[in-house]
Amino acid sequence: MNIAGDGMNDSPIVRIARRMADIEPFHVMDLLAVARQLEAQGREIVHMEIGEPDFVTPAPIVRAAQTALEKGYTHYTPAVGLTALREKIAEHYLSRFNTRVSPEQIIITPGASGALMLALGVLINPGDKVLMSDPGYPCNRHFVRLLEGQPVGIPVDATTDYQLTADTLEKLGHEDAVALMLASPSNPTGTVITPDGLAALNQYANKSNIHLLVDEIYQGLVYDFQIESAAGRSVNTFVINSFSKYFCMTGWRLGWLVVPSAYCREVDKLAQNIFLAPPTLAQYAAMAAFDADTTEILEAQRQAFKQRRDFLLPAIQALGFNVSVKPQGAFYLYADCSGLTDDSFRFCHDVLKEAGVAITPGKDFGSNQAERHVRFAYTTSMEKLQLGVERLQSYLNTHS
Amino acid sequence: MNIAGDGMNDSPIVRIARRMADIEPFHVMDLLAVARQLEAQGREIVHMEIGEPDFVTPAPIVRAAQTALEKGYTHYTPAVGLTALREKIAEHYLSRFNTRVSPEQIIITPGASGALMLALGVLINPGDKVLMSDPGYPCNRHFVRLLEGQPVGIPVDATTDYQLTADTLEKLGHEDAVALMLASPSNPTGTVITPDGLAALNQYANKSNIHLLVDEIYQGLVYDFQIESAAGRSVNTFVINSFSKYFCMTGWRLGWLVVPSAYCREVDKLAQNIFLAPPTLAQYAAMAAFDADTTEILEAQRQAFKQRRDFLLPAIQALGFNVSVKPQGAFYLYADCSGLTDDSFRFCHDVLKEAGVAITPGKDFGSNQAERHVRFAYTTSMEKLQLGVERLQSYLNTHS
Repeated sequence: MNIAGDGMNDSPIVRIARRMADIEPFHVMDLLAVARQLEAQGREIVHMEIGEPDFVTPAPIVRAAQTALEKGYTHYTPAVGLTALREKIAEHYLSRFNTRVSPEQIIITPGASGALMLALGVLINPGDKVLMSDPGYPCNRHFVRLLEGQPVGIPVDATTDYQLTADTLEKLGHEDAVALMLASPSNPTGTVITPDGLAALNQYANKSNIHLLVDEIYQGLVYDFQIESAAGRSVNTFVINSFSKYFCMTGWRLGWLVVPSAYCREVDKLAQNIFLAPPTLAQYAAMAAFDADTTEILEAQRQAFKQRRDFLLPAIQALGFNVSVKPQGAFYLYADCSGLTDDSFRFCHDVLKEAGVAITPGKDFGSNQAERHVRFAYTTSMEKLQLGVERLQSYLNTHS
Repeated sequence: MNIAGDGMNDSPIVRIARRMADIEPFHVMDLLAVARQLEAQGREIVHMEIGEPDFVTPAPIVRAAQTALEKGYTHYTPAVGLTALREKIAEHYLSRFNTRVSPEQIIITPGASGALMLALGVLINPGDKVLMSDPGYPCNRHFVRLLEGQPVGIPVDATTDYQLTADTLEKLGHEDAVALMLASPSNPTGTVITPDGLAALNQYANKSNIHLLVDEIYQGLVYDFQIESAAGRSVNTFVINSFSKYFCMTGWRLGWLVVPSAYCREVDKLAQNIFLAPPTLAQYAAMAAFDADTTEILEAQRQAFKQRRDFLLPAIQALGFNVSVKPQGAFYLYADCSGLTDDSFRFCHDVLKEAGVAITPGKDFGSNQAERHVRFAYTTSMEKLQLGVERLQSYLNTHS
């Protein structure tokens, strides 16, 4: 057996790259591990920590995958994805947002993660500053760090709907940055950027020679009004999107990137080298994502998410969590819990162990007042959300 | 329409990262594009340039995916993959190679590409040297460059079976390198590392405080004898593998990485952040990859590849291509064409246009005598290979 063979008694070499000290795990994974232990012991946990839809992939999308399997579509596609899918997405921009984006500029990626890697990979040199909101999606700063750029988190709060604004940026003066990352709707806050806000940000970016990278992966999940897309609003904007959230295709790992024309060749080259191609079956499946029967299912699910938000938001406010901006989209509530605890991380652990309710500590989204915040995800049924609220109620009654 | 709206008349910003000047496209993609044009004009092209099996994914694997779809397994898995699949791979190492690898050390990745990204991401700091053979798999140096490391290509030739050896490395003295990338069987040469060669390389690496990164993605495709795995031969070795080649799952984008224990947590952390998770359906499909009925299909296909090699190797030698080391594995022949041309890149283009045969120029695999070499892939039927050889014969007769 090789385990006893040559070399297995050598001293372990440990030379971990410096970047890894700055790349944090998702702290919620530790909570999830505890939750799984508790479940293994027979406890029922209410999961309000998970950032993915509880719904399975819509049947028409699954059927498209089954057909592709029957046809033996198991080989590589082009590195930038199937032309037919790129055309479908271009049609979607035209029909849904009245925005013309060339299929050439639409790059199919292994999840929005792949889109972030490509956009940042072609843009940033070591030491380059990339601006982003704090709180925000934690992987953003880790992608920048991976590529030896310098993530610059800018604190945002309720006064600007937790979004970066041209005014804020003008005052801070980061004209040496290469890119500005935005998200609409945002994770963890669920807030959106208004058309006027985006226009001002585009003006700021163009004046400052900065690219906007706009994360629109929750674009389909907006509840009170229609939103626009940043795609086609400036020749200099990268837009990141995904089939994961609105289309309920998380496990398929498929997203896309809208690329300014000047970068198409570079992005293709990088995609060839670091991904070879996005998953084939997922691409054939996604060909059904914009069909009428799929849309009907997805819109019903969007209504279910809206109903959950409309229940959960006042319910947690009544418990003493403060949500001062009404979240317009995604499936998150970002709540100030400073009236209940001064340590949101410990609070999340306590609530999980004692009340059997899993929520995500602010720490997972940055360092700006993280200890005062938690994130609720309404990615579980109304019944579970109601149970979660009842449990939190009695937990807080006992501990106040 | 937004295209005429605000911002679309702004000047394009172009600030392409410096790394992109060093990251080359696959030159064969240009050839493939020409081939597709010729095919669109009605010409029949013999494809001997494509680095993927012509066989579709074996039926038992496809059935496992269909079952997973029926069961609604469309959500994320853990970042490091399904525990059950990691255990299957550990069993495979034990039963096939008599090597004990802990499932904890097996990280499921989005293709071998994902495995390379993780291994290099946790290992290399800016400027760090990573040693690799030239010729070799071109993406290796591009991954290193992406992460701001310094790829060091070391020329290899027939005298060492196109493999790096401890002797060569001792003489060159790159003790400041952090990692040494190997491949067995190798792309583009199809040669393997012998057990003695590997033992010496392990010794060299441990003495020099260097990690071995061994690419074994063609491991199942060896024709004349059994080979070993580098997994479990040293506590310091990273092994990259994939379901793409032997298992004929290219489009599924699934691979794995065997990680030295000291790096497990770091690799998990990085995988969480840059991939979230590998594709779910591919993982359930791969659960059937080691089943007896799958193995039966794959072994028959391996015999077909062997038969093709045994036909193609003497056939191209008779045409004047020189292959001085018999390729033992993968599905490639790396041939010296200097008796026929002094510019392999132009030769490939000419042969495609005039003879309708697509082969890959040496340029795609490095700069060491690239203009003297081409790569033949025997990833097409015997009939097509025969046709390709006939066409080359008459092309060469006309042009000599």
